[in-house]
Amino acid sequence: MSTAQPLNVGLLGLGVVGSAVAAGLLEGRGNLAGDGARPLVLKRALVRDAKKKRPVRLPARTLTTDPSAVLDDPDIDIIVEVMGGEQPACDYIARAIRSGKHVVTANKEVLCKRGDELLPMAERHGVRLLHEASVGGGIPIIGPLSSDLLANRISSIRAIINGTTNYILTKMAREGASFDDVLREAQKLGYAEADPSADVEGWDAAYKIAVLARVAFGASVPLDRVYREGIVSLQAQEFRYAATLGYTIKLLAAARRAGDGLLVRVHPALIPSDVPMAKVDGVLNVVEVEGDLVGPLWFQGRGAGPQATASAVFGDLLRIARGAEIRPHARTGRRGDKVKLAPMANHECKYYFRLVCKDRPGVLARIAGVLGRSKISIASVIQMDADAEKGEADLVIMTHPSLERSVQRAMKEISELPVVARVAAVLRVEGY
Amino acid sequence: MSTAQPLNVGLLGLGVVGSAVAAGLLEGRGNLAGDGARPLVLKRALVRDAKKKRPVRLPARTLTTDPSAVLDDPDIDIIVEVMGGEQPACDYIARAIRSGKHVVTANKEVLCKRGDELLPMAERHGVRLLHEASVGGGIPIIGPLSSDLLANRISSIRAIINGTTNYILTKMAREGASFDDVLREAQKLGYAEADPSADVEGWDAAYKIAVLARVAFGASVPLDRVYREGIVSLQAQEFRYAATLGYTIKLLAAARRAGDGLLVRVHPALIPSDVPMAKVDGVLNVVEVEGDLVGPLWFQGRGAGPQATASAVFGDLLRIARGAEIRPHARTGRRGDKVKLAPMANHECKYYFRLVCKDRPGVLARIAGVLGRSKISIASVIQMDADAEKGEADLVIMTHPSLERSVQRAMKEISELPVVARVAAVLRVEGY
Repeated sequence: MSTAQPLNVGLLGLGVVGSAVAAGLLEGRGNLAGDGARPLVLKRALVRDAKKKRPVRLPARTLTTDPSAVLDDPDIDIIVEVMGGEQPACDYIARAIRSGKHVVTANKEVLCKRGDELLPMAERHGVRLLHEASVGGGIPIIGPLSSDLLANRISSIRAIINGTTNYILTKMAREGASFDDVLREAQKLGYAEADPSADVEGWDAAYKIAVLARVAFGASVPLDRVYREGIVSLQAQEFRYAATLGYTIKLLAAARRAGDGLLVRVHPALIPSDVPMAKVDGVLNVVEVEGDLVGPLWFQGRGAGPQATASAVFGDLLRIARGAEIRPHARTGRRGDKVKLAPMANHECKYYFRLVCKDRPGVLARIAGVLGRSKISIASVIQMDADAEKGEADLVIMTHPSLERSVQRAMKEISELPVVARVAAVLRVEGY
Repeated sequence: MSTAQPLNVGLLGLGVVGSAVAAGLLEGRGNLAGDGARPLVLKRALVRDAKKKRPVRLPARTLTTDPSAVLDDPDIDIIVEVMGGEQPACDYIARAIRSGKHVVTANKEVLCKRGDELLPMAERHGVRLLHEASVGGGIPIIGPLSSDLLANRISSIRAIINGTTNYILTKMAREGASFDDVLREAQKLGYAEADPSADVEGWDAAYKIAVLARVAFGASVPLDRVYREGIVSLQAQEFRYAATLGYTIKLLAAARRAGDGLLVRVHPALIPSDVPMAKVDGVLNVVEVEGDLVGPLWFQGRGAGPQATASAVFGDLLRIARGAEIRPHARTGRRGDKVKLAPMANHECKYYFRLVCKDRPGVLARIAGVLGRSKISIASVIQMDADAEKGEADLVIMTHPSLERSVQRAMKEISELPVVARVAAVLRVEGY
């Protein structure tokens, strides 16, 4: 038994993750830091409704609806923030830091949008702001990047870090179902929120890749500098055609050094079906890291869920209990040079286009003409399904590596050709 | 620039890994721990031959052939041991610890055989004995297990942690080649040692899984309590037959709670070809961890190579430079209860048998009789290649889950049947 003075924990939020953290503390997981470390004790939990039924039973005096009862309690040493959302979470975290409390948070939105203020603030106040749980659920990734891999120059991170969209894409690929149908089913099963926009529009993945980019590259990445495309406009056809061509569609989040800058992007991508990332299905997450010493690494696991997220929260809590010095933003501190962000326009990759064209001769010549003038070289053209009634057919074009800037320009031009009914899909093919 | 007093590093061994560590220090990777951390400086390197050509150029006064010049130098704060082998490495590590130096080592053999003495010794002397590089090359695994995942009760570790054997098995599977041929080729390419026994007999994997078991379960695992089988007796047929049945053969290292004990084992295993572990090919390593909060996790990367190993060494060095408290054996310290080790005899799994039988009627009845009396239930029997000249045929039997103890007894009995020329292979099928 440890005789060291306990560290008091104040919990902000007692939803599914907060309840799992509270349950873990009641089970004694806060005592696992080893001999000499201070045990962790749950002192207070901020809730919206003290009367609500919860999966964990806490003494009535532990619950409070008054933020000050947690944030201004001088006996509380560590705040665990698991409310989510930007506000009031961000204000609470700042308040906790200013009153000298360590903070452990799962909040990727706050870390992404306000990390540039909060992390140095924590440093100035001599407390820690740890956030392993903000990315990849229970997968250790912030820890490895900021500690185990610290000597590496990281060149690339590629990840599937949104479980909801990966569940939806996996279903669409397997069942040929439409986005709307699969989304409705995911909502019924609790894999998607009632308002799914943060997930399906790619915001959640954008927050997370920005957070990873800070840790891995020391880069400050404002949200509006993350190129972001969601999955809402993906059609069932794309999955069928992609499979025919040997690809799977995933929502890819990537940060990679390109030239002298760092390109951070989230978009659906065609992944060759035979590479491991194509097989990360359902709610699994994966983070692929490439370091100059270590080479390519692969971290995979459950990217969400209360228990998995609590595992990461406890990792950070026990770090504090042991007095371990880990600063997930150490790379920012250490490198004076500010990392420059690269624009998406310079991105180069192969592309997949689906054009709905008038089913008549000469169409391809017109399209190929535009692509040729834009220096986009065609790798293959396949005519897929035709709609005889409308006199239209799907033309699927795969290109050789081309510049995003040229592709966008060419697509605008192609969409205005009289032989083209519409540009139905422009998807990037991830290189392997 | 850091103005903190440097930490002096003494290097034991300047082979490929030692040279990569020295090069990293010269490149300034020892300054990456962040503001306020002490920079690392290479003070001395112990070599056998000071005149030998090396990939890294060090000032002549840095090199020494005298162990005392490194171990007894009071200015040296940290010893990096990358000599390998049990002795004199173990004595040097102990000597360094006793004179108050931190030790970072890549030595799985010493950690496995002498960790029970050395780790508490380091604790008593208030220094750290860190060994991320001892398992999985640059893959962060000791760090995540001892820090990020500390709140989890780990139930299982399954790993491919020997690159040499994985390279050989991958080749044998792909090319249908014999063990001897592939080994010779691997030796030519530098993937296997001139004396390959540590790898191909499973010793290296046994050291590593014992080290992981200590970190993950707090278990003290004497080497003779690791069930160990190498790959030297695997025949080309097994790969062909396994593929026919939908399996791949891997050298599996596993530690799993079984009943009230922990079973630690290294042996070739049939892995279903469609699970991810079956696809970890060549010199890649993978460690699969299952924790009660986090669920299954997957860590994959290059398991060897000087740069990857140096990445892990630097992770530990920078931990010390930041003063970060991490004890890779924390779970031992914290849990009074000694983990009991389970015997292999109680292991239960499906089995693959290849029996070379006389090609005549009634053979199967005799064999099935023995299996039935041993309570081993047959899932499938296939007659494979026959040798008409000798009048023999390969009989491949797959069983339902059976007890190791029963299988060993039955195999002895079967090998004595007059209709059986020999028991050519008994392989375990890993459950998924």
